[in-house]
Amino acid sequence: MSIMRPIAIIGGTGPAGTGLALRWARGGETIILGSRDAQRAQDAANKIIGRIGIQAKVSGMENSAACAAADILMLTVPFDGQVALLKQLKPAMRPGSVLIDATVPLAAAVGGRASRTIGVWQGSAAQQAAELVAKEVSVVAAFHNVSAELLNGDDPLDCDIVVCSDNADASQITRALVAKIPGLRAIDGGKLENARIVEQVTALLIGLNIRHKGHAGIRITGLPPAAYQ
Amino acid sequence: MSIMRPIAIIGGTGPAGTGLALRWARGGETIILGSRDAQRAQDAANKIIGRIGIQAKVSGMENSAACAAADILMLTVPFDGQVALLKQLKPAMRPGSVLIDATVPLAAAVGGRASRTIGVWQGSAAQQAAELVAKEVSVVAAFHNVSAELLNGDDPLDCDIVVCSDNADASQITRALVAKIPGLRAIDGGKLENARIVEQVTALLIGLNIRHKGHAGIRITGLPPAAYQ
Repeated sequence: MSIMRPIAIIGGTGPAGTGLALRWARGGETIILGSRDAQRAQDAANKIIGRIGIQAKVSGMENSAACAAADILMLTVPFDGQVALLKQLKPAMRPGSVLIDATVPLAAAVGGRASRTIGVWQGSAAQQAAELVAKEVSVVAAFHNVSAELLNGDDPLDCDIVVCSDNADASQITRALVAKIPGLRAIDGGKLENARIVEQVTALLIGLNIRHKGHAGIRITGLPPAAYQ
Repeated sequence: MSIMRPIAIIGGTGPAGTGLALRWARGGETIILGSRDAQRAQDAANKIIGRIGIQAKVSGMENSAACAAADILMLTVPFDGQVALLKQLKPAMRPGSVLIDATVPLAAAVGGRASRTIGVWQGSAAQQAAELVAKEVSVVAAFHNVSAELLNGDDPLDCDIVVCSDNADASQITRALVAKIPGLRAIDGGKLENARIVEQVTALLIGLNIRHKGHAGIRITGLPPAAYQ
């Protein structure tokens, strides 16, 4: 069952964006890949169609156009691009949109290591995003801890997605999107402010990947089945 | 196979301390529970012996005495007790000791929520600990993310322990201690500074426990088998 609304993946031509697009398109969702360059977005969309088949509903547009064409927006950009992009997109965002932010404030953004983070004044990249959008747009933090490389593969994943938001409906929509991807499991992580920990975990996982040569993810154990809905 | 050296669990009469003592004593290790009050420590030790049987090698002592009687020291105290206790114990610690720190800087230490943390100047409670001990003592950060309540039970656990230290031997000893507890799996998490993320994860798990009424732990997925050694 499709969620019946197009999903715009903003900054969607990087590994995380194309991986999510591939997985959701396989699940029958309609995907609009956004990029600074419309042609680049269209090329990335065609690659995904080439992998899945012509029934795949994937197109490419310039970021603002993608944003204006959907009310579920998935943001997959490096931390150093987040503020400028959100400022640019603000006029294009529809009131009532859900903005799912996967940004991680890695120290790589300032020339440091990807296994370290830098401090964000608002507490997390997700809270920074919330400050930059209109209040009619609901921000959700999710998808930080899943390997972009594994998303771009064909195997089921092995990762839990902790979903944080101050808007219950937006959190619910996001958790439904998580459940569309085989092997991912969504957990309601409560308020958006909790994203500050979930974002940090990515840096830990990157450090483990470097140390142990893997594609680390996390599972949360010890919760009742109802927690994963 | 016992690791053949007594383990002193400092501040060991709280739930985390008694849980680790119970699990290690079941595995044949020699445990010295430490407490401010020697009698309280002895009472807690007797309770564990009552559960396991008279073959259990568990005794209780005042914290400084416990510290002086072992060169593997496990610190399980609330954040607001860590600095004072380490200052008190410094003269009692043997050179060459391994200090395993499980302290988490929960905001509860200053009257806030246990699902939030407070900032530690050094970056993490573990790094604060490292500043407070002699340089002949190796600090390891570990056991932050395992449920104290589940440790005090009888079932195998379902949790990975990310072990962070700047001393490879101390990390190795700690990972061997992790492996003594059924269902726990140790992962070399690299440098001690990485403890700042592992500590934060505890606050996230506490939040999930409150929200979903569970006893959350974590598993790291996607790493090769050699990572868990």
